Amino acid sequence: MAEQSIYFEDYELGSVRTTTGRTITETDFIVHAGHTGDFFPHHMDAEFAKTTPFGQRVAHGTMVFSIGVGLTASLINPVAFSYGYDRLRFVRPVFIGDTIHTCITIAAKGDDPKRSGAGRVVERCEVINQRGEVVLAADHILVVERRDKA
Amino acid sequence: MAEQSIYFEDYELGSVRTTTGRTITETDFIVHAGHTGDFFPHHMDAEFAKTTPFGQRVAHGTMVFSIGVGLTASLINPVAFSYGYDRLRFVRPVFIGDTIHTCITIAAKGDDPKRSGAGRVVERCEVINQRGEVVLAADHILVVERRDKA
Amino acid sequence: MAEQSIYFEDYELGSVRTTTGRTITETDFIVHAGHTGDFFPHHMDAEFAKTTPFGQRVAHGTMVFSIGVGLTASLINPVAFSYGYDRLRFVRPVFIGDTIHTCITIAAKGDDPKRSGAGRVVERCEVINQRGEVVLAADHILVVERRDKA
Amino acid sequence: MAEQSIYFEDYELGSVRTTTGRTITETDFIVHAGHTGDFFPHHMDAEFAKTTPFGQRVAHGTMVFSIGVGLTASLINPVAFSYGYDRLRFVRPVFIGDTIHTCITIAAKGDDPKRSGAGRVVERCEVINQRGEVVLAADHILVVERRDKA
Amino acid sequence: MAEQSIYFEDYELGSVRTTTGRTITETDFIVHAGHTGDFFPHHMDAEFAKTTPFGQRVAHGTMVFSIGVGLTASLINPVAFSYGYDRLRFVRPVFIGDTIHTCITIAAKGDDPKRSGAGRVVERCEVINQRGEVVLAADHILVVERRDKA
Amino acid sequence: MAEQSIYFEDYELGSVRTTTGRTITETDFIVHAGHTGDFFPHHMDAEFAKTTPFGQRVAHGTMVFSIGVGLTASLINPVAFSYGYDRLRFVRPVFIGDTIHTCITIAAKGDDPKRSGAGRVVERCEVINQRGEVVLAADHILVVERRDKA
Repeated sequence: MAEQSIYFEDYELGSVRTTTGRTITETDFIVHAGHTGDFFPHHMDAEFAKTTPFGQRVAHGTMVFSIGVGLTASLINPVAFSYGYDRLRFVRPVFIGDTIHTCITIAAKGDDPKRSGAGRVVERCEVINQRGEVVLAADHILVVERRDKA
Repeated sequence: MAEQSIYFEDYELGSVRTTTGRTITETDFIVHAGHTGDFFPHHMDAEFAKTTPFGQRVAHGTMVFSIGVGLTASLINPVAFSYGYDRLRFVRPVFIGDTIHTCITIAAKGDDPKRSGAGRVVERCEVINQRGEVVLAADHILVVERRDKA
Repeated sequence: MAEQSIYFEDYELGSVRTTTGRTITETDFIVHAGHTGDFFPHHMDAEFAKTTPFGQRVAHGTMVFSIGVGLTASLINPVAFSYGYDRLRFVRPVFIGDTIHTCITIAAKGDDPKRSGAGRVVERCEVINQRGEVVLAADHILVVERRDKA
Repeated sequence: MAEQSIYFEDYELGSVRTTTGRTITETDFIVHAGHTGDFFPHHMDAEFAKTTPFGQRVAHGTMVFSIGVGLTASLINPVAFSYGYDRLRFVRPVFIGDTIHTCITIAAKGDDPKRSGAGRVVERCEVINQRGEVVLAADHILVVERRDKA
Repeated sequence: MAEQSIYFEDYELGSVRTTTGRTITETDFIVHAGHTGDFFPHHMDAEFAKTTPFGQRVAHGTMVFSIGVGLTASLINPVAFSYGYDRLRFVRPVFIGDTIHTCITIAAKGDDPKRSGAGRVVERCEVINQRGEVVLAADHILVVERRDKA
Repeated sequence: MAEQSIYFEDYELGSVRTTTGRTITETDFIVHAGHTGDFFPHHMDAEFAKTTPFGQRVAHGTMVFSIGVGLTASLINPVAFSYGYDRLRFVRPVFIGDTIHTCITIAAKGDDPKRSGAGRVVERCEVINQRGEVVLAADHILVVERRDKA
C-alpha cells in the first residue's frame, strides 16, 4: 500500500484503472452472512436455492459491493475522502466460484458546493466477472482538494 | 426469520420500522478488512489514527453499509427484489464501541418502467448511533410485484 | 429480529414451528474448529476420514447443536430465559453440503419448582437434514413468566 | 493431539482431569454470533445490555458449551464415541474477559442397553470461571468399547 | 493440551514425533489472506492461477508454515522457549484439498552461547502432504533449561 | 495491488522500503489461534499470562511473522519467487494493542547456484513496533530473473 497525493486537477476525465481479480468463494458467502447477520436462504441454503430461477446460491449485494470496492484500496490519497455513492445497481448475480475485478473510470469532475478549496470527482465503478459481464455498477463521489486553492 | 408476501399495494408511504441494535467492535473492523482486503491505516492503525482529525480508527464505509443493511434482514418477502441504492452517504464516522441500529421509512412508490406487473418502492434507510445521530443514509430501491396485475 | 412477550399461558402444547434452512459448508467446519479448538481429524482430515466408517469428515456435534439452536433465534421473548437442555442426542452424522433446519414442538409445560410466578416450557428441538432425517434432538427448557402471577 | 485407546474398564469412577484455560473475548462473541446467526442484543448490543440485570453483554449459552467442550479435545480415544449430553445447565453468565477452564469427573459407569461389547461412561463436565464458580454443567455420555468383550 | 517439563538432557538426538493431519481448505486460503492482508492473485484468483505453471491457486508460504507449526502445539514445555527458525524453505506448493501433517526430528543439541543454565535444541520440522512429499522444511531452535544447572 | 517486473539487476543494495502500519488486536490473537490450532495459554489465557514474566498475553511468533510479511505484499513482481527465509528470530514480544510495520532492506545479492538466468536477492525484513523496537527479524531469500540472461 502506497501513499500519494492526487489533487483535483490531477484526475483525468476518461482515464481508467483496473484491479487484480479475486475469486468469490463459498467461504466469502459464509463470512459475509456472519459479518452482517443476513442469513437469507438465497445466500445460505443450497436446497432452497435449487428452487429459485438462479438454481444456486447468489452472493449478497452488499458483499459484491464491499469486495468490489475493497479491490480498489491500493493507494492512499491523503487529499481525498469518500462522500458516498450514487446509482449503486446489482446488475447480475454473482455465484460461488465467479472471479471478479473492478474497473474504475473517471467519469465526471465538478465544483464542491460546500468547499471552494475542493472539487468533486466521480469514479464510475464497474465490478466485472470472468466472462466480462458487469455484475455491479456504482458512481463513487470523492471530495478532493484542489492543488490551487486560490 | 419469517417469510411473508408483501405486495406493492401493501407498502404504506411514511410507515417506519426500526431494527434491534448492534455494537460495532474492533473485531468487526478486523473482519471487514480481512473480508474486503481494505487495510487502510485509517481503519487499522491506531497510532496513525491518533494523528488524524478523528483521533481514532474509523469504520469502513462499506462495513457500516453492510451491517446497517444486514440488521434489516429479518423478513423474507418473496415478491420483492433489491434493485439497488441511490444517494448512499457516509454522514458521520463510526468508531469502535458505537452501537448502531437502522431505521427504514417507506419514502416513495411508483411504477416500474420495465415491468407493468410490478412497482418500485423506495425505502429510506438511516443508520443511527447511540446518540441518535444519523451516520449513514441511503435510498433502497425495491421492485415489488403488484397484487393486482391486471 | 422482532420482540414479543409470550407468557407461559400462551405456549400451546403440541404447536410446531419450523425455521429456514442452512447448508453446512466446509467453511463452517473450519470456523467451528477454530472457534472451539477441537481439531480432531474426524472433522479436519479428509484423508483420515476416508478410513472411517463414514468415509468422510463429520461435523462437530457442538456445531450442529449451536447452528441448529441459532436457526431458531428470530424472536426475542423478554419474559422467558433459557434454563438448559435435556437429552441432547447426536442422532446421525452431518456431512459437508448437508442442509439443516430446526423444528420446534412445545412438548411439555409445568410449574417451576423455584418460582411461583413462572412456569417451565419444554421445547422439543429436532435438527433435520435435507432427506428429512433427524440429525440432532434435544429438549430445551425455558423458564417463562406467567401472565397471571396471582 | 495424541491418540490413546482407553477402554470401558480403564475409566476410574471419581477420577478428575482439568483443562488449560481460555479467556472469552469480545471477538469470541462476534465469531459465535456470526457462526450461529444468533444476534440477540443480549450478546451483541452494549447499550441494550446496560439496561438488563447483568448490566453488560452475556455470552451465548451455546458458545460456553462449545468452547467448554472444545477445551477437552486433546486426546483421541478411538474406542469411544459421544452419545450425547444430559442435564446441560447454564448456571451463571459468562462476560467478556472471563477466563474459563473445564473440569471433567468420571461420574458413572454402566451397561450400554444396545451394545453388549460396550459400556456407558458419564463424564461430569463443569466449566469454571476465574473465580472458581461453575458457569455451565453437563453430563457427557460416552459409549466405550469393553476390553473384554467375551 | 498437557504440560510437561522436558529438560535439555531429555531431548534425544534422532527421536521423531509426528502430528495428526489436517486438510488445507479453500477456507484456510481465504482466512489467511484476510488475516495477513496478502491477496496476491496466486492465492486468490482461480482464473489467473489457471495461467500459471501450477494451474491452480497455491497456498501462502506463511500459511503452510503457521499451520505446520500449529499442528505441533500439543504439549506445553514450561522450561523451553522458541528462539527462532533457520533454513525455512518452501519446497513444494500446497493446493486446496491437500492434507498435511508435521514430522519433528531432534536434529542437533548444543550449548547456548548466552545462557550456561540452558542449551539449544534444533527440531527439524518437515511439513508433509498426503503423498508423503515434504512441502516445507525448517529448523526450529529451542532454548531449553538444563536439569543440572551446576 | 500493482504488478511490476523488477529484475535482479534492478535491486539496489542498501535500498530500504517501509510499509504502512497495523495495530495487532486481541481479535488477531483469536483469529491466529483458530487458524493454526495453537491455543497455548501464553496467547489465550489472560489469567495465566498474569503469572508469566510478561504479565500479559503475547502474540504467536508465527502471527507476527505472517502479518509482518503480509504488510509487504503490495507489489507483484512476476519475475521473482520466494525461496525461503533464514535467521528468523523472535526478538521481542508483541502485545495486544502494539502497532507494527515492516522495514525491508536489500541486504545481499548473489548468483543462484541452480539457475544461471537468475540471481538471489536477500531482503532483510524487520518488523518494528510503535516504539521503534525490532520485534522480529528475518532474511527473505528471493530468486529473481536476470534481465540479461546471456
